[in-house]
Amino acid sequence: MEIKANTYQDNGAASLTASIIGASGYSGAELTKILARHRRVKIGGLFANSLVGKRVDEVHPWLHGDILALYEAYAPELIEKSDVVFIALPSGEAMKFVPELLDRGKKVIDLGGDFRLKDPALYRKYYGRDHTATDYLERAIYGLPEWNRAAIAAGTLIANPGCYPTSALLPLMPLLKESVIAGRGIIINSVSGTSGAGRSASVDLIFSEVNESVKAYKVGTHQHNPEIRTVLGSVAAEDVSLTFIPHLVPITRGIYSNICAPLNSDISEGDVAAIYDAYYADAPFVRWSSTAIPEIRGVAHTNYIDIGVRVDRDNGQIVLLSAIDNLVKGAAGQAVQNMNILFGFEETEGL
Amino acid sequence: MEIKANTYQDNGAASLTASIIGASGYSGAELTKILARHRRVKIGGLFANSLVGKRVDEVHPWLHGDILALYEAYAPELIEKSDVVFIALPSGEAMKFVPELLDRGKKVIDLGGDFRLKDPALYRKYYGRDHTATDYLERAIYGLPEWNRAAIAAGTLIANPGCYPTSALLPLMPLLKESVIAGRGIIINSVSGTSGAGRSASVDLIFSEVNESVKAYKVGTHQHNPEIRTVLGSVAAEDVSLTFIPHLVPITRGIYSNICAPLNSDISEGDVAAIYDAYYADAPFVRWSSTAIPEIRGVAHTNYIDIGVRVDRDNGQIVLLSAIDNLVKGAAGQAVQNMNILFGFEETEGL
Amino acid sequence: MEIKANTYQDNGAASLTASIIGASGYSGAELTKILARHRRVKIGGLFANSLVGKRVDEVHPWLHGDILALYEAYAPELIEKSDVVFIALPSGEAMKFVPELLDRGKKVIDLGGDFRLKDPALYRKYYGRDHTATDYLERAIYGLPEWNRAAIAAGTLIANPGCYPTSALLPLMPLLKESVIAGRGIIINSVSGTSGAGRSASVDLIFSEVNESVKAYKVGTHQHNPEIRTVLGSVAAEDVSLTFIPHLVPITRGIYSNICAPLNSDISEGDVAAIYDAYYADAPFVRWSSTAIPEIRGVAHTNYIDIGVRVDRDNGQIVLLSAIDNLVKGAAGQAVQNMNILFGFEETEGL
Amino acid sequence: MEIKANTYQDNGAASLTASIIGASGYSGAELTKILARHRRVKIGGLFANSLVGKRVDEVHPWLHGDILALYEAYAPELIEKSDVVFIALPSGEAMKFVPELLDRGKKVIDLGGDFRLKDPALYRKYYGRDHTATDYLERAIYGLPEWNRAAIAAGTLIANPGCYPTSALLPLMPLLKESVIAGRGIIINSVSGTSGAGRSASVDLIFSEVNESVKAYKVGTHQHNPEIRTVLGSVAAEDVSLTFIPHLVPITRGIYSNICAPLNSDISEGDVAAIYDAYYADAPFVRWSSTAIPEIRGVAHTNYIDIGVRVDRDNGQIVLLSAIDNLVKGAAGQAVQNMNILFGFEETEGL
Repeated sequence: MEIKANTYQDNGAASLTASIIGASGYSGAELTKILARHRRVKIGGLFANSLVGKRVDEVHPWLHGDILALYEAYAPELIEKSDVVFIALPSGEAMKFVPELLDRGKKVIDLGGDFRLKDPALYRKYYGRDHTATDYLERAIYGLPEWNRAAIAAGTLIANPGCYPTSALLPLMPLLKESVIAGRGIIINSVSGTSGAGRSASVDLIFSEVNESVKAYKVGTHQHNPEIRTVLGSVAAEDVSLTFIPHLVPITRGIYSNICAPLNSDISEGDVAAIYDAYYADAPFVRWSSTAIPEIRGVAHTNYIDIGVRVDRDNGQIVLLSAIDNLVKGAAGQAVQNMNILFGFEETEGL
Repeated sequence: MEIKANTYQDNGAASLTASIIGASGYSGAELTKILARHRRVKIGGLFANSLVGKRVDEVHPWLHGDILALYEAYAPELIEKSDVVFIALPSGEAMKFVPELLDRGKKVIDLGGDFRLKDPALYRKYYGRDHTATDYLERAIYGLPEWNRAAIAAGTLIANPGCYPTSALLPLMPLLKESVIAGRGIIINSVSGTSGAGRSASVDLIFSEVNESVKAYKVGTHQHNPEIRTVLGSVAAEDVSLTFIPHLVPITRGIYSNICAPLNSDISEGDVAAIYDAYYADAPFVRWSSTAIPEIRGVAHTNYIDIGVRVDRDNGQIVLLSAIDNLVKGAAGQAVQNMNILFGFEETEGL
Repeated sequence: MEIKANTYQDNGAASLTASIIGASGYSGAELTKILARHRRVKIGGLFANSLVGKRVDEVHPWLHGDILALYEAYAPELIEKSDVVFIALPSGEAMKFVPELLDRGKKVIDLGGDFRLKDPALYRKYYGRDHTATDYLERAIYGLPEWNRAAIAAGTLIANPGCYPTSALLPLMPLLKESVIAGRGIIINSVSGTSGAGRSASVDLIFSEVNESVKAYKVGTHQHNPEIRTVLGSVAAEDVSLTFIPHLVPITRGIYSNICAPLNSDISEGDVAAIYDAYYADAPFVRWSSTAIPEIRGVAHTNYIDIGVRVDRDNGQIVLLSAIDNLVKGAAGQAVQNMNILFGFEETEGL
Repeated sequence: MEIKANTYQDNGAASLTASIIGASGYSGAELTKILARHRRVKIGGLFANSLVGKRVDEVHPWLHGDILALYEAYAPELIEKSDVVFIALPSGEAMKFVPELLDRGKKVIDLGGDFRLKDPALYRKYYGRDHTATDYLERAIYGLPEWNRAAIAAGTLIANPGCYPTSALLPLMPLLKESVIAGRGIIINSVSGTSGAGRSASVDLIFSEVNESVKAYKVGTHQHNPEIRTVLGSVAAEDVSLTFIPHLVPITRGIYSNICAPLNSDISEGDVAAIYDAYYADAPFVRWSSTAIPEIRGVAHTNYIDIGVRVDRDNGQIVLLSAIDNLVKGAAGQAVQNMNILFGFEETEGL
């Protein structure tokens, strides 16, 4: 069937128009699905690069039931009616768009890494390029809703957290803030599905290379390391140092993080749960248990993070286990959670 | 085709007859393949429980080209001609067979956990049952060839190491012995393929439950914890404490371990490689690199362990990465390596 | 968290109470999810056998966000308030429940095979047991909505079609009815994910046996063969004969069917699409294309069937390709589609 | 470790030097492994394009134990000492090398499609380019050893069969030659693992796109269609027409073919097995059964083809099921089988 014109539906009660720059990648496609089903949102435009002119559901056939549209080439006039613009491009791209978008009065939610680190030197070190929009770094709000709701609500530029950081920060922050654990000696082991690496033609990502294998990568050099360290530092009483080791495993969706941190004092799994009770009572997407063990299939296709706790007294360590869907809570879902806060909707709307 | 009689071939230069009790599980099947191709070995008998009378290649079709035989019910007279008996049964079973086998003058290589811990109380705590052959515990030699060659060569009862311990001990032991790392605060994160859980009808293991998920299990209670701790303790200058967290990932074969340990002193990746050079110069199955990152597909279907090293000075940690095939270096391959040592063959023969 | 009482929500506009017997299997769980989110439905009870007393989200962690309840043991009084009862049990079980349920005035939708074949002899031949509720066979309506809407709307006992039949019947029926293809010589090749085999502890289904393999099974003896043949016969001008070959592939969800049938006359892909246009204009879940090739990921987690067509003039065959999610259009989704028709809701409500 | 010079071992009894052009793809790597372990062969050179200068085991880590070498750029003088040259390049490349190689007196085994079809017009139609070495087409021997042993032994240029054709021809040819089945109306359904698509950076092949899906491709246009038809035609008493439908499934290795053909006469599974007994008595890699069902895991990593048979009298069809490892019997293994015949070794040597 030929598409003559893009027909984006008004979902009944739409009060907001949202566009996506970088809509054809995995995060962009997940975002498309969530926004297409979000009753308060009307899609304004889906912008892509190499796939301009292609049908959305030809690229992502599972979106067939949700949207009937072609990817367009971005042009400033095409987002005239948009209230919010999501950027779901590889890091390094958003900083080219953000100044103009903000100048035009748009709210921006960036799913990439360009506005997560305040320090351009750190950006240069871990992202391997100079930051070209440093003037906008201070305006960026780190979009971790469970810790930053008020600032997000008042913000214009939201830096959506990285997938690994989301999985590590939510379990760690309350315990660090309460000084239950030490700031130094934290070990974060994470395994990720392949969708985290994006929809790009790379031999390293083809099925024959990934299937039936497991491999660590970017040990000590991953750009999410300084992101985690900086955010943890903001709640810790002392300096934070950590070892972060990401791995690729043969699943499509999901991140599983396994975090060990030295205990400052004797504590039980129940005590930790009580701390989470206090910090996350109003966090609709955070679930924790002092007995159950999280698993990826329990959070796949949802915006939840599941957290489990074990105390290893013998070795003086706390063990935190967390599971998220990297495309949802680790990207598009959290971005919509931020949008909901930004526009005064229920935080769970459409999620 | 009907099989009238089991026909085990003499592989040209056989000087040894070997039988397997528990031949129908995954470790038993891998062992069957290796022994069937080992030119110094003639198979004496393949013993099973519920699968008695079934063709070996009906249960494991990939063995079709290697062996034409039926599983038999074990009876002492059926191993009369065997020089060595492998036991590849779930833990708790070997201790029922070992006394009689040793009394009959057989050499025994046990792939299970019954003879790895010297302390019956520790056995009881982690295996959940009383040890019924405690008199034989002292005779058992821990079959880690790279550290125990001489004792193995002189032994009669070899306790083949667990799969997780193999993946953790080989990287850790030289560094602990050299006091490069601390004995306390060691963190071992391991992911394992499903074959490690055996060929048993359990809902937890069916494809629909395992696929597209990752999950930690037995956190703090896994029976390989005391095994690792005890063996590490034997080379450490101080008390050892460790946190061991095993996970299940959707692959069939392989273990990937990610080990962090506090550094005692400043050291480089190259220094660590030099230590491995010294300790493992004569270890044909240990490979290490100060630059490459191991991956499971690099060791699958082989008896190698690949080890990678990273130093995280900032966090005071060494990061050791290792990959093995849990059924080969983690079970059947290492068992044959032990057999080779026991009978004076080349350590690599048939592997 | 302990659950004191099952709390089933009224989804805002509920006018119907629905219960599930056999709620803990994969079809039952998928049905639970759909019903929990269906705004016209209130769940009455979730009945299981071996899992009675277990939390729903402990068995299926991905249901955590949808429902907070324990599986209960079925008792007639527990469905007193239910308007409709779904039975999602292995074939052979529903016929024990149906008489009583109908006598109590409940509408019943059976996801199993007990009421799909009208002929008890055929049932006995393919299901291997005697039918014990033959008096009710005539009342059963075959729940293929695209062909049977009116009868379903007036029915009391709906026999929800099998997963393989759904994937084969929808592409074949219009062409057979129009005599475009011959009734004899039809070949149906289908591959299915493992969830079709249910959540049962069987060695044949464990990950290590299924992964990295493909295998045909029940060639010529599968119970869906007579179901397909009978339904095709009802629209064909001549006798129908077919070869049906199901295979297991290592995916969790989805059926892909590849159907060849001898052409009666020259026809193009476009002509076939025009026939589907005519037959399925009002079928919201049937999608067809004369150019695109269906793929499982395009229908996973949806109630759609995607159909593709190729004409092989040289060999005198039409090639029909179809993809469905076996748990949705092949089971729970289609069951809810039937429920919607039965109770006068929009056919797409909640799907 | 730096490699200063390629060290190819003489495997004890080598009487032959063999080189590979296109050694870095999956077929080339499998060939490298087999040749490195073949006691009659010394490797002469491993030639690649984009990976020149890379270590073999850096690209294919599982070759670490087999070979220590760098990929080289091909130059005619580098194969001076080679007796046989394997070409494992994409179709379209071999015809550039073959004339010179034959002129230099080398024997050539081409794993691609350039010399399988005798008719340049057919080549142009299915491969989409002109054949540039048509003078050499007549010299090419189709390397299906089970049907062409004598011609292969006397040949200089061997066209190694395609993977799909191997899986279809071996089951079909005896039955067609014996006129048990009709030549028209044959249906071949095949599913393939991803390694068949090669080691190339294509979005269609990345894990996130392939995993959890199944999809037909090149329906009616696949280049193996004319190859199968031509070879079948050479043994059939009548014209042959067939429908061939390849699919991609999420496994790395293996092809499973499901073949239906109209029966000419009443026959039993046992009768078919008797025909195979007669035709394949001396074929060491062909296994057939009138009762067992092949599965991919039964042939993975081997040079076997497993064939199963079912007769569907009701629908007048024979059903043939076959399984091979696409990289072994479907490529590198069969190529070495051809080499063995070409040089008078045991057909099974090294396989």
